[in-house]
Amino acid sequence: MAIVVQKYGGSSVGNAEKIKNVAKRIAAAKDKGNEVVAVVSAMGDTTDELVELAYSVTDLPSEREFDVLLSTGEIVSSTLLAMALRAMGYEAISLSGAQAGIRTDAAYSRARIVGVDPERIVKELDKGRIVIVAGFQGVTEEMDTTTLGRGGSDTTAVALAVGLGAEICQIYTDVEGVYTADPRLVPEAKKLAEIGYEEMLELASYGAKVMHPRAVELGELFNMPIMVASSFTDSPGTLIHGGEAMEVRNKVTSIAHDLDVAKITVVGVPDRPGIAATIFEPLAKANISIDTIVQNASIKNITDLTFTVAKSQLRKAMEVVKPIAQSIGAGDCVSDAKLGKVSIIGTGMQNTPGFAARMFSALSEKGINIQLISTSEIRITCIIDEEGVKDAVKALHRAFELEE
Amino acid sequence: MAIVVQKYGGSSVGNAEKIKNVAKRIAAAKDKGNEVVAVVSAMGDTTDELVELAYSVTDLPSEREFDVLLSTGEIVSSTLLAMALRAMGYEAISLSGAQAGIRTDAAYSRARIVGVDPERIVKELDKGRIVIVAGFQGVTEEMDTTTLGRGGSDTTAVALAVGLGAEICQIYTDVEGVYTADPRLVPEAKKLAEIGYEEMLELASYGAKVMHPRAVELGELFNMPIMVASSFTDSPGTLIHGGEAMEVRNKVTSIAHDLDVAKITVVGVPDRPGIAATIFEPLAKANISIDTIVQNASIKNITDLTFTVAKSQLRKAMEVVKPIAQSIGAGDCVSDAKLGKVSIIGTGMQNTPGFAARMFSALSEKGINIQLISTSEIRITCIIDEEGVKDAVKALHRAFELEE
Repeated sequence: MAIVVQKYGGSSVGNAEKIKNVAKRIAAAKDKGNEVVAVVSAMGDTTDELVELAYSVTDLPSEREFDVLLSTGEIVSSTLLAMALRAMGYEAISLSGAQAGIRTDAAYSRARIVGVDPERIVKELDKGRIVIVAGFQGVTEEMDTTTLGRGGSDTTAVALAVGLGAEICQIYTDVEGVYTADPRLVPEAKKLAEIGYEEMLELASYGAKVMHPRAVELGELFNMPIMVASSFTDSPGTLIHGGEAMEVRNKVTSIAHDLDVAKITVVGVPDRPGIAATIFEPLAKANISIDTIVQNASIKNITDLTFTVAKSQLRKAMEVVKPIAQSIGAGDCVSDAKLGKVSIIGTGMQNTPGFAARMFSALSEKGINIQLISTSEIRITCIIDEEGVKDAVKALHRAFELEE
Repeated sequence: MAIVVQKYGGSSVGNAEKIKNVAKRIAAAKDKGNEVVAVVSAMGDTTDELVELAYSVTDLPSEREFDVLLSTGEIVSSTLLAMALRAMGYEAISLSGAQAGIRTDAAYSRARIVGVDPERIVKELDKGRIVIVAGFQGVTEEMDTTTLGRGGSDTTAVALAVGLGAEICQIYTDVEGVYTADPRLVPEAKKLAEIGYEEMLELASYGAKVMHPRAVELGELFNMPIMVASSFTDSPGTLIHGGEAMEVRNKVTSIAHDLDVAKITVVGVPDRPGIAATIFEPLAKANISIDTIVQNASIKNITDLTFTVAKSQLRKAMEVVKPIAQSIGAGDCVSDAKLGKVSIIGTGMQNTPGFAARMFSALSEKGINIQLISTSEIRITCIIDEEGVKDAVKALHRAFELEE
């Protein structure tokens, strides 16, 4: 029998009715003759409530205790789901991350999975049982509970699929799959039947919220096919898999966008070796994620350095950068918080001329000014004014004929 | 250094303020130079909320899953308490029942502790840490979570105290200790400085809600001194310990009462061997707890059989008993739901004449009719009308000079 690993997010198990609905979907997969392992997130707002509880006791909760506290959210939902399946007459059992053999390092709140020991799951599957696993959590060598941080439950699911040699990992969420662009911006956007790991990674990193890149990376590393689909409908989702069998090559497959972009420019930076490190190391230490970095050509050994951060981190980033700019003899620091970005994503972009030109002219026709450009092998991203993002996505969707 | 095991009940950790207050008490015990292990119950109504959640999914929750679900309540409170202590600058760590080495059988919802493996706790204490243990839970050989049922957290505390060779087990609750009678009924009731295990067991079984008899039994078995005191004040509580050193012997120490008593009489039971089993085995199978049983002297091989149950179980008990009475050729089944009981408790009662007589005359002087009488070595109990209980407790408290 094939092993299928499914994952259901917090909005899919938000209340008793939804939990029963998910139980039916799991039962249907079992009825098809599969061995089923389902990974589940905490119900709806549970995690937020637990976070609030911790902060009602102290402003600085111990990370170790915080992880144990948060892990109870997924344990609650996993037991309820197992109960619902048993009430339907199916043999089901819930397992914590520790019981499911999710071994992690001891980096609390952002632990990395170091291995999967699936003995207990295999034992339960051999008894004919459906196994429900509490997502987002693991256990250290010391048997202390950890949580995996952002994208945690998706990562649990893919790791278990790999560890169990599953046929497929199915991620059920509140969208129907991966689209050629955000359907809320582009009504004619089409759902993709399939997409390569790399393209999905670029999409996930560049604004599409369907799936966390961390879980996609893990899938790519072990070549585990991942199906992203809705937990509320029965329409087929999008299959994320290796590129070899892809129908579509050398083509833009989708448009990503992100409205959470702020920009900082350090003007008049003396252009000497090590100057970038002087600026970016303190930002990294302050836990500020830098996205795009652009450095202009140097004129008389003086250059401008521009980088983008999330809007919520702009103030903190400016506080870190200003004194550094002063200490290295640079000029002013200027910021702009009203930016967004649009990206075209597709395989073989670097080998096929004309993609960039077509993107820039589509934006120019709409009167949209490009502030920064960054590219990868399968992506071209333009930073533009926030208010132009919606028009830009529509224009690009049309320019690359994605509605067809 | 002496090891002290403390236990805090659900009302003592009902919110963030109360948790911080408990943290201060634990810190004070640590500051006195003790190694401190604190067992904690779930916050206030948490357990009720989790039960409700389970029943929102199914009318018949799986016992195994139910236990895992309920166990999260104590995990939440234990992490919050550890956070509060760390915020105060104390090294503290929370452990689940499994991590604390509470090994149980697999009787879900009412598991019995089969052993304590305190290695992890000892390791943490050796690091100078305060250890907070989630009460009410344990783990099977298979590493599945169980809950201990009624009196669970008290039992966890006493078991850990025994396993760790603690100097004392302190049970902090919402009363100040064990009284000569319920202070709400008898304002002049006095707090006892100490009481023997056996007397405490009778008190616990006969209406005083201070502590579950199960934990007292465990304390007696291993001769572990137990101090019951308030978590809200600093007044000394009541020390429950072995009788050898007791100051008070051959004396009534306290009056217990219980308003939750209903009576069933099966009239005209044919008096032949095995007839009691025929009636009581089906009641046991229906999970109905029988308290007092009285059988009248047989006249012409016909007898009346009377027993008491909790009021909430009366209807179910009648449903079980009525068809049995018919099948064995007995007469009617009559019930009375408006009863209560009063007990006098003290050591050496059976060796000293006059206790029973003094009790009966005190009740008679108040015009209180005695419906049933049951006795043990250190207790005499009378079942009386519900409305007479308050007067009875007062009269007995005076008759045995407990206010002095």
